[in-house]
Amino acid sequence: MENTKIPVAVLGATGAVGQRFVQLLASHPWFELQALLASERSAGQRYADVCRWIIPGDPPPDVGKIPVISHSPFFSSSSSEPSLPVRVVFSALPSDVAREVEPRFARAGYVVCSNASAFRYDPDVPLLIPEVNADHVALVERQRNRYGSGFIVTSPNCTTTGLVFPLKPLDDAFGVRKVFAVTMQAVSGAGHPGVSSLDILGNIVPYIRGEEEKIEQETRLLLGRIVDGQRIEANVVISAQANRVPVLDGHTVCMSLAFERRPTVEEALAALNDFRPQPIIQELPSAPERPLLVRTEPDRPQPRRDRDAEAGMAVSVGRVRSCPLLDLRMLSVVHNTLRGAASGSILNAELLVAQGYVER
Amino acid sequence: MENTKIPVAVLGATGAVGQRFVQLLASHPWFELQALLASERSAGQRYADVCRWIIPGDPPPDVGKIPVISHSPFFSSSSSEPSLPVRVVFSALPSDVAREVEPRFARAGYVVCSNASAFRYDPDVPLLIPEVNADHVALVERQRNRYGSGFIVTSPNCTTTGLVFPLKPLDDAFGVRKVFAVTMQAVSGAGHPGVSSLDILGNIVPYIRGEEEKIEQETRLLLGRIVDGQRIEANVVISAQANRVPVLDGHTVCMSLAFERRPTVEEALAALNDFRPQPIIQELPSAPERPLLVRTEPDRPQPRRDRDAEAGMAVSVGRVRSCPLLDLRMLSVVHNTLRGAASGSILNAELLVAQGYVER
Amino acid sequence: MENTKIPVAVLGATGAVGQRFVQLLASHPWFELQALLASERSAGQRYADVCRWIIPGDPPPDVGKIPVISHSPFFSSSSSEPSLPVRVVFSALPSDVAREVEPRFARAGYVVCSNASAFRYDPDVPLLIPEVNADHVALVERQRNRYGSGFIVTSPNCTTTGLVFPLKPLDDAFGVRKVFAVTMQAVSGAGHPGVSSLDILGNIVPYIRGEEEKIEQETRLLLGRIVDGQRIEANVVISAQANRVPVLDGHTVCMSLAFERRPTVEEALAALNDFRPQPIIQELPSAPERPLLVRTEPDRPQPRRDRDAEAGMAVSVGRVRSCPLLDLRMLSVVHNTLRGAASGSILNAELLVAQGYVER
Amino acid sequence: MENTKIPVAVLGATGAVGQRFVQLLASHPWFELQALLASERSAGQRYADVCRWIIPGDPPPDVGKIPVISHSPFFSSSSSEPSLPVRVVFSALPSDVAREVEPRFARAGYVVCSNASAFRYDPDVPLLIPEVNADHVALVERQRNRYGSGFIVTSPNCTTTGLVFPLKPLDDAFGVRKVFAVTMQAVSGAGHPGVSSLDILGNIVPYIRGEEEKIEQETRLLLGRIVDGQRIEANVVISAQANRVPVLDGHTVCMSLAFERRPTVEEALAALNDFRPQPIIQELPSAPERPLLVRTEPDRPQPRRDRDAEAGMAVSVGRVRSCPLLDLRMLSVVHNTLRGAASGSILNAELLVAQGYVER
Repeated sequence: MENTKIPVAVLGATGAVGQRFVQLLASHPWFELQALLASERSAGQRYADVCRWIIPGDPPPDVGKIPVISHSPFFSSSSSEPSLPVRVVFSALPSDVAREVEPRFARAGYVVCSNASAFRYDPDVPLLIPEVNADHVALVERQRNRYGSGFIVTSPNCTTTGLVFPLKPLDDAFGVRKVFAVTMQAVSGAGHPGVSSLDILGNIVPYIRGEEEKIEQETRLLLGRIVDGQRIEANVVISAQANRVPVLDGHTVCMSLAFERRPTVEEALAALNDFRPQPIIQELPSAPERPLLVRTEPDRPQPRRDRDAEAGMAVSVGRVRSCPLLDLRMLSVVHNTLRGAASGSILNAELLVAQGYVER
Repeated sequence: MENTKIPVAVLGATGAVGQRFVQLLASHPWFELQALLASERSAGQRYADVCRWIIPGDPPPDVGKIPVISHSPFFSSSSSEPSLPVRVVFSALPSDVAREVEPRFARAGYVVCSNASAFRYDPDVPLLIPEVNADHVALVERQRNRYGSGFIVTSPNCTTTGLVFPLKPLDDAFGVRKVFAVTMQAVSGAGHPGVSSLDILGNIVPYIRGEEEKIEQETRLLLGRIVDGQRIEANVVISAQANRVPVLDGHTVCMSLAFERRPTVEEALAALNDFRPQPIIQELPSAPERPLLVRTEPDRPQPRRDRDAEAGMAVSVGRVRSCPLLDLRMLSVVHNTLRGAASGSILNAELLVAQGYVER
Repeated sequence: MENTKIPVAVLGATGAVGQRFVQLLASHPWFELQALLASERSAGQRYADVCRWIIPGDPPPDVGKIPVISHSPFFSSSSSEPSLPVRVVFSALPSDVAREVEPRFARAGYVVCSNASAFRYDPDVPLLIPEVNADHVALVERQRNRYGSGFIVTSPNCTTTGLVFPLKPLDDAFGVRKVFAVTMQAVSGAGHPGVSSLDILGNIVPYIRGEEEKIEQETRLLLGRIVDGQRIEANVVISAQANRVPVLDGHTVCMSLAFERRPTVEEALAALNDFRPQPIIQELPSAPERPLLVRTEPDRPQPRRDRDAEAGMAVSVGRVRSCPLLDLRMLSVVHNTLRGAASGSILNAELLVAQGYVER
Repeated sequence: MENTKIPVAVLGATGAVGQRFVQLLASHPWFELQALLASERSAGQRYADVCRWIIPGDPPPDVGKIPVISHSPFFSSSSSEPSLPVRVVFSALPSDVAREVEPRFARAGYVVCSNASAFRYDPDVPLLIPEVNADHVALVERQRNRYGSGFIVTSPNCTTTGLVFPLKPLDDAFGVRKVFAVTMQAVSGAGHPGVSSLDILGNIVPYIRGEEEKIEQETRLLLGRIVDGQRIEANVVISAQANRVPVLDGHTVCMSLAFERRPTVEEALAALNDFRPQPIIQELPSAPERPLLVRTEPDRPQPRRDRDAEAGMAVSVGRVRSCPLLDLRMLSVVHNTLRGAASGSILNAELLVAQGYVER
């Protein structure tokens, strides 16, 4: 398949999530990184020279030589139209820039796989996790009027991803109705420089702007159904409390759940253990063998020890036990910059290829 | 009052909580430290020579010279009877040792103010926070049969203390019925050496043995009432999830509450702000001016920044807001080794003095 | 003395060091905080409203009400002349701003006690630690031509302070000739937001811009002599390597020293233990009882456990032992934002008052 | 080669370094894990049931089923002789146990590749890093008298490894004569539970028992020469200061060096960059492509970002610059539990196979 790789670009390539995209795409079996976009001040220079690499390892040598292109000409107020030799554009843009730039790319015919929150709540834009709601891709048909052949697909907030993975099989089997979620989120979720060490060393910051609302809203969308081509939110009441903790990578969510039909702990464990995505998804190159791992030790999952399971693509769940107030308590851990960000968006793009939304 | 100080001893004086007792009692206006007890292997040596001081500062110079006494002869299986020139004994013993040793001291006529969990759930033993349930002291009358003039009073688990402080005024005003609590607990709560750095650096450990049960049970006891000399547990359903986090001191509790009469956020804030203990308590030497501080910033309280409020004796509460599932969400921070341990027990002893249970 | 307090101002009052100045000056026996200056965007608003308080505790209530004044009109390019009802100005300005603003204040007749590096190396400006080189104050006479009655006095880099305290008595007794210094510096030394948590959590950053040069240069100045009114640098060769570590407060310096006359470990310990400042300094309100504490445990001093000694004003030294290469090895710990910054500058101002350079 | 794998055992298989051995050997191309030994209380149980897995990932599934054997019968005081179906024994034993047990295995004809310090300083036992002193293997001939066909080979202290890698090419080219080394060592170097979180969170502990002596002594041995079958220590004066820091993995060494012939920075960089091991070593399965990586950024290497280079087998060096006191300053980072422990010992065993000291 080497000679038929699909050319792709990364928007916001120099930030923390952008670097993850670059790292993952540099050796991807289906995609070939052809263009790197960033803000005006990096434009024209080699990627390796303008990007202060902050994730583990070094920038891929070949990619380091690519000259960075400015995305500034593609703000909505301008008249420039993107013209890049690529078919798919991965976006790691800040949300306010994404709101300007992503529609320009969609309108110019590109498929935009975005990690930004700008269009997550648009009724015509899929908020997508392949193993959870692959059928939501159909929403892109509703973008034809606006964008023609291009369209936008989004991946959810990193914490929502860690919450919704255990919810999905439990919802299918027992009907999730109420969710309490308290999160303990890694600093990498805030990007670089992001959280000041003076604020977080040996401390907890019990507030992340907008996070609780995102978790509550996105969970309802991800568990929603497509009816007559429209997305219907799931009927779940969610209460989220978000905290920043001195952990590098890996978001932890403590949750308590009530169901339509209360399962026993054993029934819940069986549903979690039996969770398997559809075959079309299992064969995607970035799909983990098991997207949901059930830990049985009393003190797992833990962010540092479980975030890297299945190359950071598996969510781990554990401590499944009854709850004095609702039905069940448990907790999950997700790698927030892999499954919860760059790898998640790449898996979305792979699904689009497998479903024929992107031509090989 | 210098010449009428009450002589006291510390059991388990070399451990982390024991060191806090020693530090606080070395300059106490009412109490005078006369004896330090620890395990056999320290016996006979000077406190400064056997105690590896791990809390801030240095051991008080005068106390360092006191020779340590073994508490081993006072295990229940032995026949030795404690005979120390003190009236009050503060216990920082591990729970299994406390179960053996504390009754021997009570039976020998001493007042035991214990920080151990061994007798917290005994129906005749007060589980006491002066500002919350000072009237529970009356339970000591029920110990007369067993112990004669001596008795045991306990202070609650450190995390429970942080939870119950905001609950108390809200319960008085609106009737707390349901409590969700997710905790993020400091490593000092596990003593020294306690939590291995290999387990907790950059990590969360989502399990603390027995902690969730303690929080659930002790909260019901602390909010309970004394009826006809007996303690009746409060009718509150509590669901706790306990986590260890890489924070040195200060336990954080995220909570969500349902009430008999749902208050508005403003009404809840007013109740929290208006909380004042009885005058007899306000005048105790270790009592904070305000035992409950309401923070109004969006990102407070934080353990590192708020644990030391009022010399570590005030609990801070903040982010009081409505909850999509129950009525209100909020969080609290408590200094776990001061208010939640040594200082709490000392305040209990002060209350006993003020109420005449301990003679001056 | 209440009614004769000397009115003072703080430049750069909203930053991390500025907050320390405000905290310390709010209850100072000699000084009264009358004016707070910060950048243009804070001007006119109440201090409590514009200052995001990041150090422990809360802003002093009375100070919180003071309206902030902009220091922008006092850049050298402007013609405004400072006119504040104060005699002493404490500067916590960034160095580039200090270079512009501090001379304007000196020229307008104020005494500037600066924590910035801008004028530390000026031959006419004392780089001052009272216990180390109080006689260097005489250099201010050389500023008369430039500034008239006003003048600038600086305090050294925070790490240099931790290094030079043990050097001083050893230099007096044995003549320090060579110094190896490897530092492990707390994140608070970089201010707020300063060091990104993504860079320092569970990591070491072996580089701090300009730091090694400052340490090498300032140590020679502090150990220098005043000859005929001029400062002669000490003849010491210094090699410094600076590292940032995940510690909140407290800089640690591992050092190895060669002397003109090699002392035994015992002689060195005696010199360190015997170090006492002149009586005039011992009576200053911020002076510690003992500015240099010698620890004898094998594993002390440690930044978290020793930084707060004597209200953060004492430097701790320990592990004094022979060196296979030079003469002696040892290490020291200093509280970088107290002794090494705000408290140090306040002590300088107190010395100026005691010496009559500032009128009461 | 599958069917000719060499059967091996791990001594001390349940500890932190033992787990690394197990993880690495489970998929080794030359070695096949056949036996796991640990203390008496684990004996007879399945490895997965007795080993609390603390390193990333999970125990290899097949290995988990192996029943653990007690090493207690092989203490020197006993008469049991080891009889295991293996040829090579990797030792992760504590030093005091290693001193008893390792000679018993050597005497019984096994090749012992030890990570313990017990026999590192024995003149007949190679202290070995293949890229540094492969010719020291010859010392095993001197063990024939004692042990017959079996023998012991040791790997150095983890910190020494990080120090000696940059020293080796510089010594070859310019003759290292003096070394200052200040270390900042990760907590994993102390094993599990090892360092208490109460001691190291937000702190530095400036002392590691015996570490400085090991670094000084082992460096002289590793840089020594074999003359007439005997090891002659290198003529280098070394002064080490060891610190524990809140870093999970990765030891950092700040060093300053003096040479027989002072190189320029460029000459030193060239020597470091040109360092290549002999071809026989480059072809060993665990050998990194480049054992020494030179970083040119001003703030690298860093333990968290550079420890994993080349699967944790490359040492990184950077900040090569002149020194005001000696000739050059620089720093290095090594992964202490991979290159500095388990992987290092495995590479030693591979060298023994390649050199014919172990039969395939």
